[in-house]
Amino acid sequence: MGVPLLATGAEAGTGAVLFAVAVLLVAAKLGGLLTERLGQPGVLGELLVGILLGNTAVAFLGGRQASLLRDDPTVSVLAEIGVLLLLFDVGLESDLRALARVGPSAALVAMIGVAVPFALGWAVSAWFLPDQPRLVHVFLAASLTATSVGITARVLKDLDASRSPEGQVILGAALVDDVLGLVVLAVVTGGVAAGRGDGGTLSWVALAAIVAKAAVFLGAAILAGHVLSGPIVRALGRTGHHGLVLVVGVALCFALAFVAERIGLAGIIGAFAAGLVLDPYGVGVRTKADAETLNELLSPLATVFVPLYFVLMGLQVDLGSLGEPGAIMLGVGLVVVAIVGKLACAAGVVRAGVNRLAVGIGMVPRGEVGLIFAGVGAALAVDGKPLLAPAVFSALVMMVVVTTVITPPALRAVFAGRAQRRRSTS
Amino acid sequence: MGVPLLATGAEAGTGAVLFAVAVLLVAAKLGGLLTERLGQPGVLGELLVGILLGNTAVAFLGGRQASLLRDDPTVSVLAEIGVLLLLFDVGLESDLRALARVGPSAALVAMIGVAVPFALGWAVSAWFLPDQPRLVHVFLAASLTATSVGITARVLKDLDASRSPEGQVILGAALVDDVLGLVVLAVVTGGVAAGRGDGGTLSWVALAAIVAKAAVFLGAAILAGHVLSGPIVRALGRTGHHGLVLVVGVALCFALAFVAERIGLAGIIGAFAAGLVLDPYGVGVRTKADAETLNELLSPLATVFVPLYFVLMGLQVDLGSLGEPGAIMLGVGLVVVAIVGKLACAAGVVRAGVNRLAVGIGMVPRGEVGLIFAGVGAALAVDGKPLLAPAVFSALVMMVVVTTVITPPALRAVFAGRAQRRRSTS
Repeated sequence: MGVPLLATGAEAGTGAVLFAVAVLLVAAKLGGLLTERLGQPGVLGELLVGILLGNTAVAFLGGRQASLLRDDPTVSVLAEIGVLLLLFDVGLESDLRALARVGPSAALVAMIGVAVPFALGWAVSAWFLPDQPRLVHVFLAASLTATSVGITARVLKDLDASRSPEGQVILGAALVDDVLGLVVLAVVTGGVAAGRGDGGTLSWVALAAIVAKAAVFLGAAILAGHVLSGPIVRALGRTGHHGLVLVVGVALCFALAFVAERIGLAGIIGAFAAGLVLDPYGVGVRTKADAETLNELLSPLATVFVPLYFVLMGLQVDLGSLGEPGAIMLGVGLVVVAIVGKLACAAGVVRAGVNRLAVGIGMVPRGEVGLIFAGVGAALAVDGKPLLAPAVFSALVMMVVVTTVITPPALRAVFAGRAQRRRSTS
Repeated sequence: MGVPLLATGAEAGTGAVLFAVAVLLVAAKLGGLLTERLGQPGVLGELLVGILLGNTAVAFLGGRQASLLRDDPTVSVLAEIGVLLLLFDVGLESDLRALARVGPSAALVAMIGVAVPFALGWAVSAWFLPDQPRLVHVFLAASLTATSVGITARVLKDLDASRSPEGQVILGAALVDDVLGLVVLAVVTGGVAAGRGDGGTLSWVALAAIVAKAAVFLGAAILAGHVLSGPIVRALGRTGHHGLVLVVGVALCFALAFVAERIGLAGIIGAFAAGLVLDPYGVGVRTKADAETLNELLSPLATVFVPLYFVLMGLQVDLGSLGEPGAIMLGVGLVVVAIVGKLACAAGVVRAGVNRLAVGIGMVPRGEVGLIFAGVGAALAVDGKPLLAPAVFSALVMMVVVTTVITPPALRAVFAGRAQRRRSTS
């Protein structure tokens, strides 16, 4: 035939990709449903299904199909849409004034959450790998600093706790953490590029520029949003055309994600800012007589796209790499300091009445950020050898998997305990 | 920086693509809203916005950004998701028994709608281009045969007429037409490949095989659906987990589209089949106490993705090509036979009480199918020269644009007239 796509206008192979998406979607949803039945957040099941599929797909499907699932650019764009919609949704649910109230706590939590894991990670690396160059220590330490705001935001949403004081501190701190993570990664890769490994190639001016850009961007987005978008969105709401409200919301989410990327920030920061901008209108504005808010309109989109992101995150994990000699020991060491280092964040909560343990646990998951560090480290070559030996890479992956997988049930337990205490005192 | 996507895990450049999507989405929605205000179907505005953007984008954005909008594989996958969701939705709304009742009419309409335009197209081509080889006549004639089921389905949906007898005849015929279009394209490209241009390189056995595959596929999908999917979907509905119902529905849509492509049919036939399979459950099954059906859950997804498909279809149209000498005359000739040829379909309606004019008009739009034919013809080379000269290509594009753009208002006028007569007689 040669022209199987008559009347669709698409490239050949689209069908195969969408079939892969269909398989991932159903598997993710069933996994999520299973963990929900067990009283755990759905995201845990989606991650585990991804890990399971990723580590058995080669056996079942053969290498080509397995890598289609994992590496296809279309699947990763759809997953990217998922995480953007998630952060947009969380932004919509966030209360700007509440976020401002927890601002000092969030900033302190984020700074402690970068400094302590970095110091502890360096110590562990130096203890287990005394013969490795200093750059390896820097790399392992840096990979312990970031927080996966995606995982935390999702768990908070699953627990309906995004708007709790703890939720707002965690989200604020995780976003500041994202910016600090960019700084750390810039320093580390800058050090590698210069081949010196002392992490000193970026000037303080350049570092300050990254932080300033993030602050200016979020500030400007929110300010412009309140001045310009507000009246526009209210006008859209008055048209009663709920499709238009949804499309403008999604478009703003994508557009601010693009702007954030362009100025060197993560796309998800832009998506969150878009949610904050529309916040007063998202939860409040009702578009029709039967009252569909932007959140409600967004829900079917999020239902389809968000699980894709987490199942794909699971697919990236290669459990086989844990078989390398020495990997388990180093991995256990990294896991311990990864958890302890982020729990130390709790000390940064200066606001009364906030559950510090919940904040500390919320900062623990490394998720895809940790995997990016591990991947960058494995791909870097120093003197012709990969910077991170296979055992070190495996240990990093183990740290990421454990911190990511333990967070949903732990966070749920803390929030359930809090709710119980409140009930018993009232 | 070099790592602007920290914490997103996506390829660089995703942001730019999603920004383009945001621009297209808002432009399409505003165009659709404008034509709706003028009493015309929204799809007309989306098409016109696409044509406008496509023919001015180079001036405004420069060539690179303009081709990013038109040719980016991610944008076209998202648009492909749009047309699949549209046909899935139409399948959900279709009544299988009603479709069976109009079966004979639909088959006759489709066959006339291929034969008459083919004959008239050949005559026009031979009249205007007496010196061209016979293969050019075959090609022009063949490009007049197909119907764009996407356009028609969308207009019927905009007019809330998908379930009318006329709507069911048109949809049935357009789907049969899709299969016949595959046969014609196979014959024509087979003839070109053999360099003979007599269209006789495919055996009758091979032709029958295509038709048989389509019939078996639709039959098997529907049968299997009724036996297997029914109980499963009912069980899903009983769980009351509306996310699961939506995900399973979308996954079935993508999966059957993939199967359809794999056996050499168009993906949209699979998506329609998926809708038919779930039909009794789609409209009927209510997933929660507050009664969200699969159609309702699908609506926000369709709102975002379907307009992308039509705005992208508009983007493909290069109005500049109409400047070629002789293009306008040949184009007018093709437009006339394109319309007359499909109106002749109306004779195939054997069922009483069906508005024949509505059926004839519903078969007129060539849409993306015609553009595919034009593109294939322009890309084919015979004796080192392109098969279709620039003027001929332009005339084909003109035929596609005119038949596509006049259908929405014409169909609306016919349906409005029918509704009025019904009111005045009752």
